[in-house]
Amino acid sequence: MTLEETIRRKIDLKTKPLGALGQLETLALRIGLIQQTESPQLKHPTLLVFAADHGIAAEGVSAYPAEVTYQMVLNFLGGGAAINVFCRENGLDLRVVDAGVNADFPEHSSLIAAKAGYGTASFLHDSALTVEQLEFCLAKGAELVQGLQQTGCNVVGFGEMGIGNTSSASMLMSVCTGIPLDQCVGKGTGLTTDQLSRKQSVLQQALTRHGLLTDPYKILQTYGGFEIAQMVGAMLTARSLHMVLLVDGFISTAALLVASRMQPEVLENVIFCHHSAEQGHGLLLDFLQAEPLLRMNLRLGEGTGCALAYPLLKNAVAFLNQMSTFAEAGVSSLDD
Amino acid sequence: MTLEETIRRKIDLKTKPLGALGQLETLALRIGLIQQTESPQLKHPTLLVFAADHGIAAEGVSAYPAEVTYQMVLNFLGGGAAINVFCRENGLDLRVVDAGVNADFPEHSSLIAAKAGYGTASFLHDSALTVEQLEFCLAKGAELVQGLQQTGCNVVGFGEMGIGNTSSASMLMSVCTGIPLDQCVGKGTGLTTDQLSRKQSVLQQALTRHGLLTDPYKILQTYGGFEIAQMVGAMLTARSLHMVLLVDGFISTAALLVASRMQPEVLENVIFCHHSAEQGHGLLLDFLQAEPLLRMNLRLGEGTGCALAYPLLKNAVAFLNQMSTFAEAGVSSLDD
Repeated sequence: MTLEETIRRKIDLKTKPLGALGQLETLALRIGLIQQTESPQLKHPTLLVFAADHGIAAEGVSAYPAEVTYQMVLNFLGGGAAINVFCRENGLDLRVVDAGVNADFPEHSSLIAAKAGYGTASFLHDSALTVEQLEFCLAKGAELVQGLQQTGCNVVGFGEMGIGNTSSASMLMSVCTGIPLDQCVGKGTGLTTDQLSRKQSVLQQALTRHGLLTDPYKILQTYGGFEIAQMVGAMLTARSLHMVLLVDGFISTAALLVASRMQPEVLENVIFCHHSAEQGHGLLLDFLQAEPLLRMNLRLGEGTGCALAYPLLKNAVAFLNQMSTFAEAGVSSLDD
Repeated sequence: MTLEETIRRKIDLKTKPLGALGQLETLALRIGLIQQTESPQLKHPTLLVFAADHGIAAEGVSAYPAEVTYQMVLNFLGGGAAINVFCRENGLDLRVVDAGVNADFPEHSSLIAAKAGYGTASFLHDSALTVEQLEFCLAKGAELVQGLQQTGCNVVGFGEMGIGNTSSASMLMSVCTGIPLDQCVGKGTGLTTDQLSRKQSVLQQALTRHGLLTDPYKILQTYGGFEIAQMVGAMLTARSLHMVLLVDGFISTAALLVASRMQPEVLENVIFCHHSAEQGHGLLLDFLQAEPLLRMNLRLGEGTGCALAYPLLKNAVAFLNQMSTFAEAGVSSLDD
């Protein structure tokens, strides 16, 4: 029997009608396959919030001023943001990564300094990252996840904060999938219809400027951002270390898309946590043939969908390890 | 300002774009309105699993033999069923109610003896309950919830176990909503297509036999079952005590439907937890204009959808009580 058959059989012998736990059964199977065991365990779950600034934000593509990236990182460090609340509530450790915010932070036990610069260049005029910055970001992301694994962590969630980063994600999505740009651009954190037109026009100009790109490293270097590039490096390493990857919204799914263009196998380790309200995310999920666990119309980022979905992973692993079989419980099964 | 306006304003001042927490914001508002406070708290959440046998099961409407009701109650008491695992994992207290199983149980600290009989009569030939049994069940359900409230509980989830009870639920649904019976009948815990035809034929005969009914008490007495009637009594009392009601699958939603025919206000206290895979549940949710929190293709009953969704309630209350405002965190809002 293959491991998949062994896990499926273990699930089917539990005291419930065949398949009656629906998507939770698929989830338990997936986690077992990632960990290569029929008795998986989730250890020291950690959510990494990667934060960085974006040169494109100066072109008027966001509802919020760029300094909100810095202010929100301080809010994360102070414990008052949504992701702080959800991580505390659901038992995830939260670490904030300064991948390239346009300001300096005081030292803090939850803050990881990994600055690639003080914001990217605007991809309307230039490549968002230099080659050196891209290499730095990929290596930093990898290093972070290696460090987590050494603390015993085997589940890592990916969150982000960066005013302007839905613009980068839209570019990455359109260029990597071939889906027309206008279907990949949405209102982000709350653009008006006029502002959305402006964003679409700016991004269309950038697409024309940079022309056809096919190499995922070049695409990532061109459109950024620092936080997305660090997520890509972190995701690839997490996959190689047999970790469970939690991915939720538009930005982190776009990072995953780029990572999957580098190493398609990374997708096997991903639990899709939430179907976002951001235009484009649904199409991107379809492209990746993903069916997220939750669909609650969140459009906040920060990894909030990962943190909210995490209890479902715990329940999936718990039923696989703890539920009685028909034989153990003396319950008549359909086979009796 | 009304309380609803106060809560909405409290949500809107949090450090997130307006509406960015989607359905979680609606959930927080609902819980606040139920508890009549802008700082709600969830205390001693308890899941009640009501178990009973059904005379209609003798007519070949279920994939499983009737003794599975008894066996599964023993499994609940032994801690090995899905609902045990999910309640443990998510911090709910589990109580099992013998509303009328066709066997006697040994005493157990988690078992509440509330037997209305040893299974209902078959509604193919007779009313499922006598008038006295219906009164007993409604009173017992009410008494149970009063007892819970005295222990400090303010959140109660409704689960059930009873071989044959999707048949009762289908009848209740069709008679109370006017939706044609064939759209209210599904495969339950796993009927084949032939068995489903048999079930539909039996239920159609019963519908013809009992004719047009409009009084919800008479409808409930006619189609049962004991566990559904106790849930109805429990739901009405939970509403009157300002408790949060967790409702998930086809059976408990059918019980709620009947309860809402007696007291429409009961719906205001309900959190719909899961959109079941059972045929009919989707139509019933539409009828009640309900949008459940989860849609994971569960079709197990036991209250598993309630237990799995409960962490989302905790997160909703936590963000409402714990997140910083823009002013507290020094973050620029759209109004700045």
